[in-house]
Amino acid sequence: MPHITVNPDLPGITGLLDYRQDTGLPIRQLTQILLRGESTLTEGERELIATVVSQGNQCRFCTAAHTAAADVILSEKETSEMVKNDPANAPVSKKMKLLLEIARRVQADARTVSAELVEKAKNEGATEREIHDTVLIAALFCLYNKYVDGLATVTPAEPAFYERLGLILKDRGYMPSKDRYATLNN
Amino acid sequence: MPHITVNPDLPGITGLLDYRQDTGLPIRQLTQILLRGESTLTEGERELIATVVSQGNQCRFCTAAHTAAADVILSEKETSEMVKNDPANAPVSKKMKLLLEIARRVQADARTVSAELVEKAKNEGATEREIHDTVLIAALFCLYNKYVDGLATVTPAEPAFYERLGLILKDRGYMPSKDRYATLNN
Repeated sequence: MPHITVNPDLPGITGLLDYRQDTGLPIRQLTQILLRGESTLTEGERELIATVVSQGNQCRFCTAAHTAAADVILSEKETSEMVKNDPANAPVSKKMKLLLEIARRVQADARTVSAELVEKAKNEGATEREIHDTVLIAALFCLYNKYVDGLATVTPAEPAFYERLGLILKDRGYMPSKDRYATLNN
Repeated sequence: MPHITVNPDLPGITGLLDYRQDTGLPIRQLTQILLRGESTLTEGERELIATVVSQGNQCRFCTAAHTAAADVILSEKETSEMVKNDPANAPVSKKMKLLLEIARRVQADARTVSAELVEKAKNEGATEREIHDTVLIAALFCLYNKYVDGLATVTPAEPAFYERLGLILKDRGYMPSKDRYATLNN
């Protein structure tokens, strides 16, 4: 049971962004810019960063939601599965493997993002903007994971819930919109 | 040396919010609402939450900055010192001690914020909004701490730097403003 009273039709983060919409708006705006705005990282790559950070924080809701978003954007489920469970062999570029490693270190202890690791990523073609965005996306998903679990929000059990949420995140992005969650529960 | 090229006159978070101003703006807005907006928690209490979370993440820049902000708002240095180093005996209310404990757990592992701890805080008068805001402030400062340290930004050594920054945070809050950092380095 959540620690505060939220709309029971809105599990996980969805109820929190609704509970205080004035704080929800800048969180949504930041996410929209970082995950859907102009970038040399694809939307799928950015969802994979969100996924591995959520996995590192053991946030079940966010891990399932962003795995689903990555899967629907990439039109396959293997990449997210491999990135989570066998990252060395995941079908992503060398640059992306290093950016995902940076994201994991930001999650675990940001002080461990070393100059050497950043240099390796740059040698594989990562730009400073990509390094910046990887760190900020990882930091933002630590905010989300801690917000969701610190208030003990509900984590639906059915995979179909996350498939519906993943579709919403692909088709509508992160900004508020009319009837945004109309398809969430059925 | 920072992992990316930032303005050398803007150490710590200040250079990052300047590096990408489009992402900096919603981060600043969220902080302004949570730390300076209408609340039954005082500005000093909210800065103390930011301080203990930054201390937990061992982010030297943010710990020094928000200690300084709390000190200048409270017009004394004892409370922040005690809250950081002897929280059981800190001169804050029982409610505030429990909210600070919730914040520390959000920082360490948000899944450890128990229903029992939240109940205790409610029994000392904490409202659901105060519980919500404590968790979100703690989550936001995890974002800040990881952003600052994940990009290896510069941490000035002189205490006077943080006293100047604390004054800016008290007098101007968190939103962008003209010549915001004019007094930062001297």
